[in-house]
Parts: sequence; structure tokens; C-alpha cells
Amino acid sequence: MSAIDEVLIANNSFSTNFPDQKLPTKPARKLGVIACMDYRIPISEALGLKNGDAVIMRNAGGIVTEDVLRSLIVAHYLLEVQELMIINHTECGMLTFNEQDFIEKLEDETGYTAVIPAHFYTFENLEENVIRQYRRLKSHPWIPHDFPIRGFIYDVHTGKLSEVALK
Amino acid sequence: MSAIDEVLIANNSFSTNFPDQKLPTKPARKLGVIACMDYRIPISEALGLKNGDAVIMRNAGGIVTEDVLRSLIVAHYLLEVQELMIINHTECGMLTFNEQDFIEKLEDETGYTAVIPAHFYTFENLEENVIRQYRRLKSHPWIPHDFPIRGFIYDVHTGKLSEVALK
Repeated sequence: MSAIDEVLIANNSFSTNFPDQKLPTKPARKLGVIACMDYRIPISEALGLKNGDAVIMRNAGGIVTEDVLRSLIVAHYLLEVQELMIINHTECGMLTFNEQDFIEKLEDETGYTAVIPAHFYTFENLEENVIRQYRRLKSHPWIPHDFPIRGFIYDVHTGKLSEVALK
Repeated sequence: MSAIDEVLIANNSFSTNFPDQKLPTKPARKLGVIACMDYRIPISEALGLKNGDAVIMRNAGGIVTEDVLRSLIVAHYLLEVQELMIINHTECGMLTFNEQDFIEKLEDETGYTAVIPAHFYTFENLEENVIRQYRRLKSHPWIPHDFPIRGFIYDVHTGKLSEVALK
């Protein structure tokens, strides 16, 4: 059975017992999170978030891309999100390969090149990477100057968040 | 207390009881998910996914942006992800506003315009939007032609996934 078929069986059971709760029209805790898509970060449990609490953005690396700017602007201006956590993590895959080598591998394997994605956003230092994402947000004209943003590194072996001093 | 400070207290308790489990080096179920960032979708519970099972990408709308292509290519070629679910949902915020009006509101409020994000990817029909995301993936030269992709709409009132016929 495919993984998706297994998910559909699980969802059937989930929805059978789904409480028809009154969910908030905006995220209850006015929180946004941009985190890596990594399979080892259980966002809700690790952050103590319940259904309806927060807007969660996830991509490879927890990078502030154009898509994250788009999503955060929607979250702030339309959904009243008032705080943002940037979460990178130990043992991130984006620390382990070189962007140019990867593009050459894709070109060799497929016989095609591509205009997008223009970048893969690999990095070599976790703390510096978190600071860089913060600076990308701070320099955007549609993110208010006083919008609270804090950065963290999640340890996949301990489940603990450590704060990064942003500057 | 800020929402982030509350999260840190919750994370402290989470990490105190964190089992030092042997997590897989690749996502155990070889599954990728692109879903909306909406606060009303409890991805892990609704899909029956455990920590370590799947790669989760989330943005405003569950749109196949450049960032999602980037993340999926990493997930497939480096993390051995072999199946993808596209998940949009009922009552999505991206159904409720007009992109051009929103840009004008941002320009009026901030006094600035911006080159990126170039698009907000609002849409008017959920099924058509899911099909469009599928087609974006199918046309990319680095996504294998036989890569299994299925599309779904999640009902925020029942917790149930309904499959969309992709074409």
C-alpha cells in the first residue's frame, strides 16, 4: 500500500472522531512560525501549539524566500499575526551539500537544466543562517520595523529550542 | 507574556521528556506534503503522521511556488521522498481577497512598493487551484514524469480529506 493510501485510512479515522469545534477566524495566539520541512521536527508538540493557534510556514532549511515573505505578509495584514519565530535545526540537510554540485547532478540525471529554482539556499553555519533570514525580513518594506521576530535552533536529539541573538 | 515566551515554556517541558529515539536519516514513509499554512489544519494528527515520517512544506494557500519546487527537489533527490500530497482546504483565506487590491492596501499603509513577492497567488476555485498546482509540478523538468502526485481538499469543519481528480 502506498504511503498516501495509508494516510487516507488514518484520515478517515481522524475525521470520524473530529470534534466540530468552533475554531477561531484568526490564529488564536497571533503567532507565525517559519521552520525547516525536516521530518524530525514535530512542530505542534515541540512548540505546545493546538489546532487554531498559529500559522506554520515550512520549507527546505527554514529560509526566508519570496514565498515566505508572501505568506508572512498575508499572515500579518490579513490574519493579524503579530510575532514570528524563525526555526532552523541541528543536522539540517541544507548544511550537507554544495548548491552548484547539486545543480550539476540534476542536470546530469535529467538531461535538463531549469531557470527556477534559482537558488537552493544551502548554508555552512546555523547561527549565521538564522541571522541572515532575520535580516531578509528586516529589510523588507512591507514588514513593519517593530514586528517582533526571534530566531531559534532546534536540537533534533533533545527537542530543545535555543535562541539565537539577532542583530 | 508574548506568544513566543509561552512557546518556550512549552518547549522546555517538551524537551525535558523528549525520548532520545533513533530517528530515521530519511523520512520513514518517503512522503512529501505541500499544504496551506492555515492554523486550522493539524497536519500530523489529520494525516496520522509520526515524528520522522514525512517532509512537510507549508505556505499561504498550499501553492507550488519556486520555493516548493526547490524544497521538493531536495526532498526527492536527497531525502528519497517518493510520493507527494497537495492539500488545499475549505474556507482558505486566499479565496477571500483580490491580489491587486491587497497590493494597493500594502502600498497605501506603508508608503512603499516592493518587487517581491511578485504574486500572492489568490484563487477563486479550490478544485481548479489544486489542479493548477499539480500541473506546475508536472511541467518541471526536474520532477520525474512518473513521480506520484495526488491532490486533496481538507474540510476544516469535518477534518476529512477529499481527493481531487488531477488531469
